[in-house]
Amino acid sequence: MAVYTEVTDEDLDAFVADYDLGSVLSCKGIAEGVENSNFLLVTERGPHILTLYEKRTKREDLPFFLGLLEHLSTRGIACPLPVAARDGVALRELCGRPAVIVTFLSGQWPRRAQPVHCAEVGAALARVHLAAADFTLTRPNALGLAGWRELYAKCRHRADEVRPGLSAELGAELEHLGPRWPADLPAGVIHADLFPDNVFFRGEELTGLIDFYFACNDALAYDLAIGLNAWCFEADGAFNATKARAMLTGYRKVRPLSAREVAALPLLCRGSAIRFLLTRLYDWLNHPEGAFVRPKDPLEYRRKLRFHQGVRGPGDYGLDMEG
Amino acid sequence: MAVYTEVTDEDLDAFVADYDLGSVLSCKGIAEGVENSNFLLVTERGPHILTLYEKRTKREDLPFFLGLLEHLSTRGIACPLPVAARDGVALRELCGRPAVIVTFLSGQWPRRAQPVHCAEVGAALARVHLAAADFTLTRPNALGLAGWRELYAKCRHRADEVRPGLSAELGAELEHLGPRWPADLPAGVIHADLFPDNVFFRGEELTGLIDFYFACNDALAYDLAIGLNAWCFEADGAFNATKARAMLTGYRKVRPLSAREVAALPLLCRGSAIRFLLTRLYDWLNHPEGAFVRPKDPLEYRRKLRFHQGVRGPGDYGLDMEG
Repeated sequence: MAVYTEVTDEDLDAFVADYDLGSVLSCKGIAEGVENSNFLLVTERGPHILTLYEKRTKREDLPFFLGLLEHLSTRGIACPLPVAARDGVALRELCGRPAVIVTFLSGQWPRRAQPVHCAEVGAALARVHLAAADFTLTRPNALGLAGWRELYAKCRHRADEVRPGLSAELGAELEHLGPRWPADLPAGVIHADLFPDNVFFRGEELTGLIDFYFACNDALAYDLAIGLNAWCFEADGAFNATKARAMLTGYRKVRPLSAREVAALPLLCRGSAIRFLLTRLYDWLNHPEGAFVRPKDPLEYRRKLRFHQGVRGPGDYGLDMEG
Repeated sequence: MAVYTEVTDEDLDAFVADYDLGSVLSCKGIAEGVENSNFLLVTERGPHILTLYEKRTKREDLPFFLGLLEHLSTRGIACPLPVAARDGVALRELCGRPAVIVTFLSGQWPRRAQPVHCAEVGAALARVHLAAADFTLTRPNALGLAGWRELYAKCRHRADEVRPGLSAELGAELEHLGPRWPADLPAGVIHADLFPDNVFFRGEELTGLIDFYFACNDALAYDLAIGLNAWCFEADGAFNATKARAMLTGYRKVRPLSAREVAALPLLCRGSAIRFLLTRLYDWLNHPEGAFVRPKDPLEYRRKLRFHQGVRGPGDYGLDMEG
């Protein structure tokens, strides 16, 4: 639930006056998202989303993110399109923060994802990967192996406050992944954070993908591993192979996976699990007293990591090996 | 910032299907309000507000609140109008909670209130008082003198945790107010919570009043005392007599104040100050660990109380005595 910056109506009116959007009818903070301040802005031209970028989103990354949204939109991906003001510029400033107005997407994120949703998400992820293939800007993944090691160095001395033994477990996993992490899989722009609350549906129809603010260049199959972790475990921690099969099948119908990508999946899933385990652990340990946002449980991802450590091979994800 | 109940898309679709609103396009939790869960619900018929009533709003009070909104709407007050489903019933159930869809009001609440806003708020308050005069349901004010005493009994032993001496100060004020509290002023339905975030404007034009969930029967001038406390102090604690004069003048143009109401104002302001001081103190002391909502500072109202204790008479509120 996130609105970090308070926007006065005078500031907002002046800001919106630079656009061809008519006057402001309403602007309400949205109680979703944890990184930036989001508002549902209704003007005489209808609803839009106003985002103010808070500290965690780096200013120098914004051209990549906004350029990517524009690139994907023009290629038919249902994602927010940055709206340019009359001077042609979309990235502006409001209340001392970088700010942008983007188009409004209908739909709601699925609170109880079904296999049919997972199939759609897999297909959408593949379409993003294909559509971004000719996007010219790049952004390294700050939360890859080197980033995990940095986070681990910052958390290792306090990780056992969350659960005894956690620090050693993380250290051992990083030692396992280091020499084995695949460096030469097909790569490109990945979403890197496609959790259920970032995908809108109307019924079974996917109507939009949002929150591209972790997008970066990395192995395409790693994005799928993030998706498997985000969508295919039940609330009780059980892995749902039916959902995983649906997601992988949906993906492969749009973009076939190579044998090396399939073989790498268990390792990629372990990497994706430790990535969210580490960021959640860091947030848990560094959660400011009295902050609005309740930190997410890091141990959820320890359970997922342990599942992936135990799989016998890609077949455990419901995959047949025929490509 | 408040969304306490998570609504699944399936539950929401089924809920909205009972209305003549078409299908759901979007539903986003609003990061405002502290008592109930509010969502901006966009359907094929446009935007509405969906409210789920949480525990603090009593189920048996809802017919009063919803009936009042309907009564005021039909008399031209810009307030949310409960929307009836196809069976004619507006108060329904969603996710085990009483739930209602109300009309959407344009405008934004003024982050920096000016005297012109205060004048409009005064006039609007008077229009509400007149429009509600023939509303037949009644609801006693649970946060009147007896309610303050109950709250004080619950907080007195811990009040000094917030500021040494606070408990004695509250006790002395209640002893002062008890025998002097006016029992026979013109009474009727009051809003009882008309803070800036409950009043929408477009520029200088008032476009709506919301959040009638403390409305009750009490002295009409007490509502004005609540408004003076809510609108006419600056962030540094200073009383702004220009704003107070604007609010009182705005009110009196619509509904003249009797000499007894004017004379009672300092006492009513003290009562209003201790009411918010006590509820904030109670929330502060009973704030659940890790809750979403940051409790409001009770001491803001101690400063206001002390101001009202020091006034020489109604003239200090910028009032001339001619009615």
